[in-house]
Amino acid sequence: MRQEKGNKISVRKEWTDYILSLQDTICRGLENEDGDTSFITDEWKRPGDGGGGRTRVISNGHVFEKGGVNTSVVYGKVTDIMRAQLHIDGDEWFAGGISLILHPENPFVPTVHANYRYFELYDDKGEIMDQWFGGGADLTPYYLFREDAIHFHQTIKNACDPFGQELYPRFKKWCDEYFVNKHRHNEARGIGGIFYDYLRTDEERDVKEWMNFSMSNGNAFLNAYLPIVHRRKKTEFNEEQKKWQEIRRGRYVEFNLIYDRGTLFGLKTDGRVESILVSMPPTVRFEYEYHPAEGSRESELETVLKNPVDWI
Amino acid sequence: MRQEKGNKISVRKEWTDYILSLQDTICRGLENEDGDTSFITDEWKRPGDGGGGRTRVISNGHVFEKGGVNTSVVYGKVTDIMRAQLHIDGDEWFAGGISLILHPENPFVPTVHANYRYFELYDDKGEIMDQWFGGGADLTPYYLFREDAIHFHQTIKNACDPFGQELYPRFKKWCDEYFVNKHRHNEARGIGGIFYDYLRTDEERDVKEWMNFSMSNGNAFLNAYLPIVHRRKKTEFNEEQKKWQEIRRGRYVEFNLIYDRGTLFGLKTDGRVESILVSMPPTVRFEYEYHPAEGSRESELETVLKNPVDWI
Repeated sequence: MRQEKGNKISVRKEWTDYILSLQDTICRGLENEDGDTSFITDEWKRPGDGGGGRTRVISNGHVFEKGGVNTSVVYGKVTDIMRAQLHIDGDEWFAGGISLILHPENPFVPTVHANYRYFELYDDKGEIMDQWFGGGADLTPYYLFREDAIHFHQTIKNACDPFGQELYPRFKKWCDEYFVNKHRHNEARGIGGIFYDYLRTDEERDVKEWMNFSMSNGNAFLNAYLPIVHRRKKTEFNEEQKKWQEIRRGRYVEFNLIYDRGTLFGLKTDGRVESILVSMPPTVRFEYEYHPAEGSRESELETVLKNPVDWI
Repeated sequence: MRQEKGNKISVRKEWTDYILSLQDTICRGLENEDGDTSFITDEWKRPGDGGGGRTRVISNGHVFEKGGVNTSVVYGKVTDIMRAQLHIDGDEWFAGGISLILHPENPFVPTVHANYRYFELYDDKGEIMDQWFGGGADLTPYYLFREDAIHFHQTIKNACDPFGQELYPRFKKWCDEYFVNKHRHNEARGIGGIFYDYLRTDEERDVKEWMNFSMSNGNAFLNAYLPIVHRRKKTEFNEEQKKWQEIRRGRYVEFNLIYDRGTLFGLKTDGRVESILVSMPPTVRFEYEYHPAEGSRESELETVLKNPVDWI
């Protein structure tokens, strides 16, 4: 499987085909589960000739109040802002990724986020200088169901394990460290999953192996999420529970706008605003000093968010 | 009025007394206009012995759905993060400020924000090395009423003019440049007001003069805002108009969490989270590709936000 250093092979074509096909599969799976509404598609192009994307948005469904499943396949000259923000050098770049986020209507159905992306960097002769994969998936419930948390993590672990038993624990930890509202005394955004970045050819795996790893994870997404949606989507809920969901969504907004590298980088480099911010929850609430009652299910969730759990 | 350089006089005591008294006055004025509810007060202390603050919050009033009028009077040793973020040197610092934001229930009543702050920096002998004032007030309507915009700006101009006719235009421009969502194709957060920072003793005015200038502005706040509230608070509104307000509030959230220096600095330096984020609107909506109908009152507002107006 290994490639020799200095003999880097581009996988952009293969990866691009994969994410477009995964987008179709995921949207179809989500539409089936929703049962009521379909994704609308917006295709967009970058100004000039640098690729574009396919934004798919669902709203006001039976299950999904709002969601986006987006692909973008973009390329161009390395700019000064990229040099500064990404600490990269080189002449041209390519980035292909799929990014999704789903905000269910029912507070007993968790919000989910996933993202799988690939980056190539070329020198002025068009040779690949650098290439890496990044990605992950994480779950943000409003009420904790241990079996759901275990199912989500176990499905992801199963997708990782064929590539090395050490990967799931390593990327699970990275996820717990990344999706954190530091200003909220290190409260996690959700109950985690995995997060990885800068996966380059190394002693053990080449970039093609990392692509297969990312594909394995992409393919596992629906299996990780849909059974949970299916189990919870008919749970009855009241106004107070909806309100709790909206308050927690506020924390989601805080994380995405204050810390999330992808969001901020996209906004600062003139990415397509509407595609980036489709991640924002549909309705959100911010209250001063809102604290759930001690011993309540809401407070049970908060405890877990302050003390990440090893679910498996 | 001028002080000589190298002979810097502290005004921290005078300024502290002023902002505490202004907080009382402003809260009383707002409570009278609301007619239904009162501010609650939370006093807090910085860990260790570095001062603290008085957070006052109003919620679910007749007029004000949520609002905060906060003072903080804090001091301590200059830390590394302050050196890096504020580009300051020195041994100890003092900061005293009042900061307020009001989110009315009725979409025809504008949101308002104001902030008046003072900073002193000392060397290791306790001598003042640097001192400056910052502040301003700006209005964020959901529907445009020219007479309201003119009244707000004129009242502020009248507060500035005694200190120099050039100040209002200069600080009005600064405000138009500061409160901007760059990622929204440079859409302004609202219709402006004034913004100023780093007002130090210079050839024309000493720091005491800038304090008087800030006091003049602080004293003008209720006059600038309350008549507008009074005129609009009984206007009937429907669900669609409320929804528009909530969508625009989303832009407010975006600005505060992505760009606002005070918010981000506070969050990154372990400020009191609940006091900082009391600025967040109570209910917010994020929709994909929401665009008001051409020629509508909503679209009239958008036009003004993309093209700042000289109201006077």
